[in-house]
Amino acid sequence: MSRIVMKFGGTSVADLDRIRAVAARVKRVVDEGHEVAVVVSAMAGVTNQLVAWCQQLSPLHDAREYDTVVATGEQVTTGLLAIALQEIGVEARSWQGWQIPVRTDSAHSTARIQGIDGSELIRRMGQGQVAVVAGFQGLAPDNRIATLGRGGSDTSAVALAAALKADRCDIYTDVDGVYTTDPRIVAAARKLDKISYEEMLELASVGAKVLQTRSVELAMNERVRVQVLSSFKDEPGTLVVDEDEIVEKQIVAGIAYSRDDAKITVRRVPDRPGIAAAIFGTLAGHNVNVDMIVQNISADGTTDLTFTVGKADLPRAQAALAEAQPQIGYADLLADPNVAKISVVGVGMRSHAGVANTMFRALADRAINIQVISTSEIKVSVLIAADYTELAVRALHTAYGLDAA
Amino acid sequence: MSRIVMKFGGTSVADLDRIRAVAARVKRVVDEGHEVAVVVSAMAGVTNQLVAWCQQLSPLHDAREYDTVVATGEQVTTGLLAIALQEIGVEARSWQGWQIPVRTDSAHSTARIQGIDGSELIRRMGQGQVAVVAGFQGLAPDNRIATLGRGGSDTSAVALAAALKADRCDIYTDVDGVYTTDPRIVAAARKLDKISYEEMLELASVGAKVLQTRSVELAMNERVRVQVLSSFKDEPGTLVVDEDEIVEKQIVAGIAYSRDDAKITVRRVPDRPGIAAAIFGTLAGHNVNVDMIVQNISADGTTDLTFTVGKADLPRAQAALAEAQPQIGYADLLADPNVAKISVVGVGMRSHAGVANTMFRALADRAINIQVISTSEIKVSVLIAADYTELAVRALHTAYGLDAA
Repeated sequence: MSRIVMKFGGTSVADLDRIRAVAARVKRVVDEGHEVAVVVSAMAGVTNQLVAWCQQLSPLHDAREYDTVVATGEQVTTGLLAIALQEIGVEARSWQGWQIPVRTDSAHSTARIQGIDGSELIRRMGQGQVAVVAGFQGLAPDNRIATLGRGGSDTSAVALAAALKADRCDIYTDVDGVYTTDPRIVAAARKLDKISYEEMLELASVGAKVLQTRSVELAMNERVRVQVLSSFKDEPGTLVVDEDEIVEKQIVAGIAYSRDDAKITVRRVPDRPGIAAAIFGTLAGHNVNVDMIVQNISADGTTDLTFTVGKADLPRAQAALAEAQPQIGYADLLADPNVAKISVVGVGMRSHAGVANTMFRALADRAINIQVISTSEIKVSVLIAADYTELAVRALHTAYGLDAA
Repeated sequence: MSRIVMKFGGTSVADLDRIRAVAARVKRVVDEGHEVAVVVSAMAGVTNQLVAWCQQLSPLHDAREYDTVVATGEQVTTGLLAIALQEIGVEARSWQGWQIPVRTDSAHSTARIQGIDGSELIRRMGQGQVAVVAGFQGLAPDNRIATLGRGGSDTSAVALAAALKADRCDIYTDVDGVYTTDPRIVAAARKLDKISYEEMLELASVGAKVLQTRSVELAMNERVRVQVLSSFKDEPGTLVVDEDEIVEKQIVAGIAYSRDDAKITVRRVPDRPGIAAAIFGTLAGHNVNVDMIVQNISADGTTDLTFTVGKADLPRAQAALAEAQPQIGYADLLADPNVAKISVVGVGMRSHAGVANTMFRALADRAINIQVISTSEIKVSVLIAADYTELAVRALHTAYGLDAA
């Protein structure tokens, strides 16, 4: 007997037939003798409609009222799923964030969970009752509903699993696990049986959209075993677990890519102390996040600085730098939105030299020019021209021996 | 400065434009210097959709889960109206039943309000904040949401007005007040400036669908001054108040009709003690409510009993009586769904003789046969063939001098 948290996203509960299918799947787990809590999102499309209404009434609406409106989507799903479970003979009841309660901070619409009192749920699960919990929401200190921001239901599920001391948190989604890379690009991509928290975190942050980054961080901190699996197929997915649990460690777990960045080059900046602070301080002041940064070797007292920002932030970044041009004193500003970031992720890098070199050689063999490089302990990322994205991903997948036999 | 509760039904908040119009109307009342609480229903159509989902998943669904699902309709409206009010510079916040709290009994889906703690709302209204309150719902003793049953938002508004010691409860609806009769039948029908609680209660119970019966009962018991007025026109409606407030009392306030009843005649019942109890006990045992009853003079040891039941209950009533035929020992069972109940209501009847006679004469003059008669202190109702409904209503409207000049 295990205690399991099952989480279903919006597409998995999009209509009554799918809600019935979710109920049937929960029943199978209950019938195996497990204690079960289910975390649900709003039915697909509902949240978008509710958000649009708030936006249309006032672009700068009160976040507390937004939370009141938007949280109803999950509330509806909890009640409907509880009814569907009861209909097939599974004892169940719905729980809203304020009833458990799931306590959050006061950052309405982007709240963080601060604590969950799991005692009553544990007691009832012990008596065979399935807890159907509204994801994405909690109760703020002002006794009002707070939502966690888009995609927050993954975080709700992991936080609940931690509070309930669950043996596993199963995240049901429209993909059937974590792959070595995007199967739409590399047909030979393999589904991973296991991946470490650290790898999943790096993959999530560089574009693999399987799990929300915050939920992986939380799982890592709370040591919650997470499984990513398909709502529509009945087969095991990928376990996200502690590195120690992974016996056969690959040097590289996966290849991720992202086309969400844009490149900015500031040409002929005076090469003196404080100049980087002036540039990046300007961007921070305009709420622009900078990711990869490279600075050229100085020549004749000036240098070039290249960095990436989110594509959506590019116009704001350009405007901010143009305005600060007199203070910074650069000669020229170049922007290129047609770039892609390719990342190789694996805990094996810690102990294996030459991982980055394999990457550079594989790209060089295909005549793919590397524009910027950044590394972390378990990740190497390069910026290349966007046109080469698929070619680069395929080349790296082969170079690291990830292709399925 | 007064304290006013304003209540808007589903058609008044059916879309964002109408919600904006409601906000504008609330602002006008606020700008006049009044303290305002607003009670809202779900956007038109939303509740029906939510109810249908519950029904489709399980015809005998858990009422607590139904309440969880259905109460979201009002919750959405509260948040959207609060945003719309803030957008035009009116300080406002939404309140759900569980936040105030509005305490109910434990009869989920048909709960009754047991108490409202109005202190925090009164404090904030005193500071100029408009309270936007979800109608139709409260918090049951099990700490779960309970709804009051369909149309319960009127009751929510009146109960809130009582708790807030409001000077008036304005019920905005798609009609502009209470009329002497249905204006679709009698073009000369007049809007009443005032009507007493007792009269409104009798009219509500005999088919005038302006206010929910329970809300009128509550208003009468708590002495809440209620105004029924149009959401779409900007003019005074009808005040529902204590009889003492009405200076120029009419003998008859209005004529109501209902086609919701069916007539049953049990022929040649043995005329012995206990026979009425046997018949009506059988019906009560099958959950059939009986309204008007008439018993013929006995002849040769048998009698005929005629009574009305709700049209929807007719098949159940017929089956129950057929089953009990051996015990009751009647000869024949006749059913007629083609009947209408016409009611004349007015507190003046208490002190004026001949009110019923005027009715009987007016109907006799048009050769309308009266099948059953029932009376209360301030009401006379007759059952007639449904084909004569409009003719009877017009004749009575004229006979009691109600036609507009």
